Amino acid sequence: MAYPDIIGKSVPRVDARDKVTGAAKYTADLCPANALVARVLHSTVAHGLVRAVDISEAEKVPGVEKIVTCFDVPDIGFPTAGHPWSTEISHQDIGDRRLLNRHVRYIGDDVAAVVAVDEVAAARALRLIRVEYEELPAYTDVSSALAPDALPLHEEVSDSNIVKQHIYEAGDLDAVRSRADLRHFRHTYRTQPAQHCHIESATSFAWMEGGKICVVCSTQIPHIMRRVIGQALGLPWGSIRVIKPYIGGGFGNKQDVLYEPLNAYLSYIMGGACVRLEISREEVFTSTRQRHAEELDYQAWVDDKGRLMGRDVLVLAQNGAYASHGHAICANSSTVLRDIYNDELATRTEAKTVYTNTGTAGAMRGYGIPQACFAAECMMDDIALELGMDPIEIRKLNMMRPGFVDPGTGIACNSYGLADCIEKGRELSRWDEKRARYAKPQSGNIRRGIGMGIFTYKTGVYPISLETASARLVLNEDGTAQLQLGATEIGQGGDTVFCQMAAAASGLDFERIHIVSFQDTDTAPFDTGAYASRQTYVTGKAIKKCGELFRQKLTERAAARFHRPAEELTVAGDRIADRSGATVVTLADLAEDAFYALDGSEHITAEVTSHCTDNTFAFGCCFAEVEVDLALGRVKVLDLINVHDSGTLINPALAAAQVEGGMSMGLGYALSEEMLYNGEGRLLNGTLLDYKLPTALDVPDLKAEFVVTDDPTGPFGNKALGEPPAIPVAPAIRNAVLQATGVAFNELPLEPKRLVAAFSERGLI
Amino acid sequence: MAYPDIIGKSVPRVDARDKVTGAAKYTADLCPANALVARVLHSTVAHGLVRAVDISEAEKVPGVEKIVTCFDVPDIGFPTAGHPWSTEISHQDIGDRRLLNRHVRYIGDDVAAVVAVDEVAAARALRLIRVEYEELPAYTDVSSALAPDALPLHEEVSDSNIVKQHIYEAGDLDAVRSRADLRHFRHTYRTQPAQHCHIESATSFAWMEGGKICVVCSTQIPHIMRRVIGQALGLPWGSIRVIKPYIGGGFGNKQDVLYEPLNAYLSYIMGGACVRLEISREEVFTSTRQRHAEELDYQAWVDDKGRLMGRDVLVLAQNGAYASHGHAICANSSTVLRDIYNDELATRTEAKTVYTNTGTAGAMRGYGIPQACFAAECMMDDIALELGMDPIEIRKLNMMRPGFVDPGTGIACNSYGLADCIEKGRELSRWDEKRARYAKPQSGNIRRGIGMGIFTYKTGVYPISLETASARLVLNEDGTAQLQLGATEIGQGGDTVFCQMAAAASGLDFERIHIVSFQDTDTAPFDTGAYASRQTYVTGKAIKKCGELFRQKLTERAAARFHRPAEELTVAGDRIADRSGATVVTLADLAEDAFYALDGSEHITAEVTSHCTDNTFAFGCCFAEVEVDLALGRVKVLDLINVHDSGTLINPALAAAQVEGGMSMGLGYALSEEMLYNGEGRLLNGTLLDYKLPTALDVPDLKAEFVVTDDPTGPFGNKALGEPPAIPVAPAIRNAVLQATGVAFNELPLEPKRLVAAFSERGLI
Repeated sequence: MAYPDIIGKSVPRVDARDKVTGAAKYTADLCPANALVARVLHSTVAHGLVRAVDISEAEKVPGVEKIVTCFDVPDIGFPTAGHPWSTEISHQDIGDRRLLNRHVRYIGDDVAAVVAVDEVAAARALRLIRVEYEELPAYTDVSSALAPDALPLHEEVSDSNIVKQHIYEAGDLDAVRSRADLRHFRHTYRTQPAQHCHIESATSFAWMEGGKICVVCSTQIPHIMRRVIGQALGLPWGSIRVIKPYIGGGFGNKQDVLYEPLNAYLSYIMGGACVRLEISREEVFTSTRQRHAEELDYQAWVDDKGRLMGRDVLVLAQNGAYASHGHAICANSSTVLRDIYNDELATRTEAKTVYTNTGTAGAMRGYGIPQACFAAECMMDDIALELGMDPIEIRKLNMMRPGFVDPGTGIACNSYGLADCIEKGRELSRWDEKRARYAKPQSGNIRRGIGMGIFTYKTGVYPISLETASARLVLNEDGTAQLQLGATEIGQGGDTVFCQMAAAASGLDFERIHIVSFQDTDTAPFDTGAYASRQTYVTGKAIKKCGELFRQKLTERAAARFHRPAEELTVAGDRIADRSGATVVTLADLAEDAFYALDGSEHITAEVTSHCTDNTFAFGCCFAEVEVDLALGRVKVLDLINVHDSGTLINPALAAAQVEGGMSMGLGYALSEEMLYNGEGRLLNGTLLDYKLPTALDVPDLKAEFVVTDDPTGPFGNKALGEPPAIPVAPAIRNAVLQATGVAFNELPLEPKRLVAAFSERGLI
Repeated sequence: MAYPDIIGKSVPRVDARDKVTGAAKYTADLCPANALVARVLHSTVAHGLVRAVDISEAEKVPGVEKIVTCFDVPDIGFPTAGHPWSTEISHQDIGDRRLLNRHVRYIGDDVAAVVAVDEVAAARALRLIRVEYEELPAYTDVSSALAPDALPLHEEVSDSNIVKQHIYEAGDLDAVRSRADLRHFRHTYRTQPAQHCHIESATSFAWMEGGKICVVCSTQIPHIMRRVIGQALGLPWGSIRVIKPYIGGGFGNKQDVLYEPLNAYLSYIMGGACVRLEISREEVFTSTRQRHAEELDYQAWVDDKGRLMGRDVLVLAQNGAYASHGHAICANSSTVLRDIYNDELATRTEAKTVYTNTGTAGAMRGYGIPQACFAAECMMDDIALELGMDPIEIRKLNMMRPGFVDPGTGIACNSYGLADCIEKGRELSRWDEKRARYAKPQSGNIRRGIGMGIFTYKTGVYPISLETASARLVLNEDGTAQLQLGATEIGQGGDTVFCQMAAAASGLDFERIHIVSFQDTDTAPFDTGAYASRQTYVTGKAIKKCGELFRQKLTERAAARFHRPAEELTVAGDRIADRSGATVVTLADLAEDAFYALDGSEHITAEVTSHCTDNTFAFGCCFAEVEVDLALGRVKVLDLINVHDSGTLINPALAAAQVEGGMSMGLGYALSEEMLYNGEGRLLNGTLLDYKLPTALDVPDLKAEFVVTDDPTGPFGNKALGEPPAIPVAPAIRNAVLQATGVAFNELPLEPKRLVAAFSERGLI
């Protein structure tokens, strides 16, 4: 697959200069200075009915323009998930949200909103609103929510607190259970709720113009945002305009619709005045989304050679108060298990997503796979330890092999670098030497270990959901081109690789591609946005097709103007060349002629839709070397190596940066991050002071490595890259701690309190 | 030509609500509050060389960030005219501008610029800049500029002060001259310099982002603006981004590039910081553009029946200090003479555009035709008076008839409503009755008269220049459509008629067309912009072609999805219907399927270029009844009627509003407006207090009437409408004054000082 040199080249980010100089515009930078300010009043009870809201004192605050309560807003249930809309009702997201809620379902739920001339007036008014609640029993964990007598949080959606559940069965698990020659393992693995901690809060401003409600917002999904705002307000989707500037991180939290519909509504009731709604960091923690806490009750049957013969896994996901992405994430946690390891005889997975009176869980980098992978990889090491096998060997025995086809979705293993990734990590980590060294009896307070974990990850959402993307290339007067997409740059470097792809497909020099860095649903081609590690793959296909069409149109114009057969011409950087390589015309001259020729002007554009019916598996692994201070319960990561097979890398430097970011996120997930709720459902550590996000001081040198494969379904041989890096880090560290200490931690994070308790219990300290 | 009802329907403006409620965004509304502020230092001498600029004191003003002088800017000559670029060098606009000038050529020329944190600091600094000039002789009128010893204002462009000249000759004028049987008439008609007086000043702000200079500005011509800024700064045109919001009027002044390149440059040298440059009303008067003062030395030979046998006309246009639109306007003044009236034997026109040390003349509504029409219509009444003919009869004898083809351009009279316009005006004004009544001897101080004038006007600029336009329609998720154009709404109602056209061509309901009201050169299809009364005609063709393609794509999608032959289907408002009229699918459902179908999504868009090689003549006339107060020299307009043939009217109410606006402009041109320069070239009345723009109290009830024709070259039978209304008013009033008083005023405006002087001279007072 020979592409021009631009594919695989680490060109600097197209937005690098703007981002380091501060020239890049984010939502808050664009908000008019005289915009009104909105603030939200949140529920102080975890479950209850609002009986009354007294705004009489709040209304008297000078500068308060409007106060709306849960009794004022339209009674329209709307979904918030950043999923493509489905034309099948059964596949549509659950519309269990209201703009403001009379039935409050968590501490932080939205009861009222104030619009004022400034932050101070809005904040003063918030404090003066009096809400009278009728409290209901609060179910702050999965088990209480599933109790037979538990009230359903959403009667209109479900008569239990199960958002949705599904069972997958293959083979005869009863036969496996009854075999005495198999070893039976059963462990329960638990993962914690975690927050995305993007730098930029959920921020938006809205006004009305041209008969439309316009919303500038920090989102990964402008076209989906448009649809959901339309749904929430009961307005035609075409009368909503969403503009997405650069955003300061999203990590899935902004693959959901957050306060933008409320913002749109507030502008609407203010007669179209510009209203800004920027929530605080504390509100991001309590009232946006979080990673699902999951519990995986995992049973495995293994023969004495370590071959997985059968598994039975129950996955329970704590979804919090609203459906958000519904069952999709928990479903993902369960289905991945049959991909990464293949049972010989039988598999059963059961997955349940459960409403609870806690903050809502939604999309977060990895989308259920970090939880599943933690369980799968812990179990694999637990079995290996029991059988006295090397963790790498037991994985090689059981993991996905080339030619695999997922039985549920038909997604095939089209390219396969997993085994090479493991070998590369083994070598780079000096696994054999260290594993052997640390296997020797250790004593004293400081113990060392090395561990690893692997993963597989789908690329995009087909065939579970729609995959579609459009792209537009427009010739400029100087022979450069505008590339316009609905796909979004969310900090990951998307715009840069999109330009590389457009250059490769069109034949233009990379420097001649100008990308439109913002998305405006009034003018941008349609794309569902940044999620599922889909854009370089799904949008990439659209860019490739569009670039090829653009190249064709350029050569056809040159052929017509210079009386040459079009098939002999090609685009070569800054010119049209013939087969001998000779210049037929520069693109600058071709463009000048196309725009201004008196005998035939033509504004050359190419626009395509790419309906994508492909998907493919990306792979990778993490190797972690740790030093555990038993007395302090502290895990120091000495070495951390991720090796990824993401197919062909479009931009290796950006790919490495993506991996490093994901490893840092995985490190926090492994060791320190956890949203702590008390029994009443109150978040205890919802600030960046109390929530232990790793800082630069906590992160070791990160080693991001790749095994390059050429995926035949990828537009340029590429496949998923964005989300995977966060996945294998936690189990690799956990398994390293297991080797160092002999203690199998089945619950994340491995934070000092938990470690000290376990070490004490085991008599290690 | 049967179009759906939407053509010819007076639907309310799509921007009406926003404009009356203040929601519509103009440039100043969009400028960030923290932008730096730029102000320009203007020349105080009419002609000279800047010897030195001392900025030492000005730099000390707190808040001053930067001062640049004419010695700092790049030495790049650039053109400013809002003309399509020409690939032929000889046809390119004259690049005689610099961002700031060492050789200053009028009082108001640009010498230096200050960038400061606010207006106050900028203004203080401006006052402290000391400029040392070496004065040169100033030529403040055409005759002094053409004197043999006059220094050329632009040595690099021309060794005289003639910007350009041309002669048109047909027939044997010498033979005409020598015929004793013909009556010879010779008069010199003079028109004054006038200002556009758009409400919104020339306003822009610029910053750098994404490697581009972005300029938001109040312009009629965003794509041309992009090109000129690129030329002025010596940067690739694709690295300039121009955004045009709603604008508060242009009338041709914003068909020129004004301070936007300087604004772009100031941001560039400030490292891309946002800089705002809004000039004052006084600067709009001195330093933007104005209507050419012209002098037409007009000779006509007429037989005794009043038939024009030959003409010899010399047109001199005072162009001011810079070329701007060059010779195009003066050329238009001369060529129209051969169109509106056709000589029997011979025509000679000579036209010269002359540089002078006064403010620069450029495009203004009518583009040279108001001046020419004033001369032509005065002459026609002067001849009629002499021959004792009725002004209508002499016109009917000589005016353009169906089948006419302009000998210079080949533009044909494709549709013809002129005679009907005159008859309609005759009837509405009760011409016969009043003309006869006022023809009777009048005495006393108050005299009455009725007069009229006719005109013809081309539609667009083909074949003199390029005519090209693109249009894009994009299906929305709800079955509505986005219409995106490079053509601009400049207050004239363009967006509304574009939506009507798109609805008619696509078959969608008018309400389902959402227009993108701003132009952003990064995302808008190419169009040269609003001028030459071209948009409903030239852009209209693009919209029609685009709408038809969009309709085809919608029916093809429906055909494929519902297994019906596409040729049996059509778009019917909000649905796809078959030949029986039955609904096959609603557009809402079709769109939902197109966006979200798992078995084949498609984002339906249509984009076309329309290269236009048509042109056609629009016609009209004005009837004016006046009452003259001899002693006060005051003309009171009792009745004013314009009747237009603009082909088929897309929106009659908007057409009438256009005509009323033009009539008001014509009224000011006739009676009060004039930019007064003293002998040193200093503008004496450059404020809205001193410059006598008609107010509501000065304007009588205006009657705007139409004769509807169906032009076969117009996309919907339509032709020029925007500029014509301003043309025939001044001569109609002048001719009415002639009837009332017997005094032939050959110079505009007919203001009291001039009238009192003439009436005194004639012994009337």
